[in-house]
Amino acid sequence: MAKTKKKVAKKVARRSSGASKDLTRIDPGPRMSDAIIHEGRVFLAGKVADRSKGRSVREQTAEVLEQIDATLKKAGTDKTRILTANIWLSDISTFSEMNAVWDAWVVPGRTPARATVEAKLAAPEYKVEIMVTAAL
Amino acid sequence: MAKTKKKVAKKVARRSSGASKDLTRIDPGPRMSDAIIHEGRVFLAGKVADRSKGRSVREQTAEVLEQIDATLKKAGTDKTRILTANIWLSDISTFSEMNAVWDAWVVPGRTPARATVEAKLAAPEYKVEIMVTAAL
Amino acid sequence: MAKTKKKVAKKVARRSSGASKDLTRIDPGPRMSDAIIHEGRVFLAGKVADRSKGRSVREQTAEVLEQIDATLKKAGTDKTRILTANIWLSDISTFSEMNAVWDAWVVPGRTPARATVEAKLAAPEYKVEIMVTAAL
Repeated sequence: MAKTKKKVAKKVARRSSGASKDLTRIDPGPRMSDAIIHEGRVFLAGKVADRSKGRSVREQTAEVLEQIDATLKKAGTDKTRILTANIWLSDISTFSEMNAVWDAWVVPGRTPARATVEAKLAAPEYKVEIMVTAAL
Repeated sequence: MAKTKKKVAKKVARRSSGASKDLTRIDPGPRMSDAIIHEGRVFLAGKVADRSKGRSVREQTAEVLEQIDATLKKAGTDKTRILTANIWLSDISTFSEMNAVWDAWVVPGRTPARATVEAKLAAPEYKVEIMVTAAL
Repeated sequence: MAKTKKKVAKKVARRSSGASKDLTRIDPGPRMSDAIIHEGRVFLAGKVADRSKGRSVREQTAEVLEQIDATLKKAGTDKTRILTANIWLSDISTFSEMNAVWDAWVVPGRTPARATVEAKLAAPEYKVEIMVTAAL
């Protein structure tokens, strides 16, 4: 019981201090963080193309997956440990074009749960956005 | 071995009794729960405006974030511990208007992973919906 | 200390061996897995209708929920332990039709956090897609 109280007190102290030692953010910004790590998992922001903005779905998907690789690496994990992937395409008719890049990127047999739907993205230059969660 | 068997037996008993002691729901309804707590995390339902239904994105975003604050508080956590946020706007051209409210609400450097896309919501009066997951 | 080092070494060995003993996939495919289990939770892929493809939202929702039941069963859990559900309807005017099937399927008081929005799906024959995460 005393142990439990101490544990709770410690937890409250940690949290009110603002330290949040159990949360680690990668590139935290004023609006969102690139990723946030919590108890064995890393949660990535939805990624869109930067240098290939406005170009083909093929190019944008390749760049987005490259960004995801880089962030997963910073978190100490990799694409074979992705749990979920949410993919938004601004035009669902590009489904096959996106998949060609995706299929070449994932490791067969070590693929995540995935859902892909159509949605307009933050700017018309963006044709694909991908948000993933991975195990560390 | 005996210990493991006992543990499994206990787990099965707990689950078949319907108690689900490891799951705590906030305002469980017949269709969905306002939130559900499981092992160190809370999962909130997608929130839409209630009293500001039909009004501006600015007003609806403010109300939705207020609702999220209230639910996070019930779960014993707060906005600095949000892991992921999914935002749907019925009109993506209101992206900046939503962000003005969002940016004033989040705590710089303690922001979550986020993705925002356009989608028609359950009723045309709803202009923004936000679904978050947070660490306890 | 020695114990910790051993633990780390073991973890690295496990991961570099490709075994990923902490990840269990259900029906892993070259593009995605039907579901993936990690530390007390199961993450399901977005499910669409198969045999009722092209038919009513009512029929497709019933089939999708049946598929979800089957996958949750394989993971050793059930619908009363769903944490989150994301539902996409290709036409949001079918919201009530989908809900009629959903409401009859969930167990009152044991419902998940949920969000439903409109989105075009991978093929026009698909009218509803549902992606869930559940506690084991």
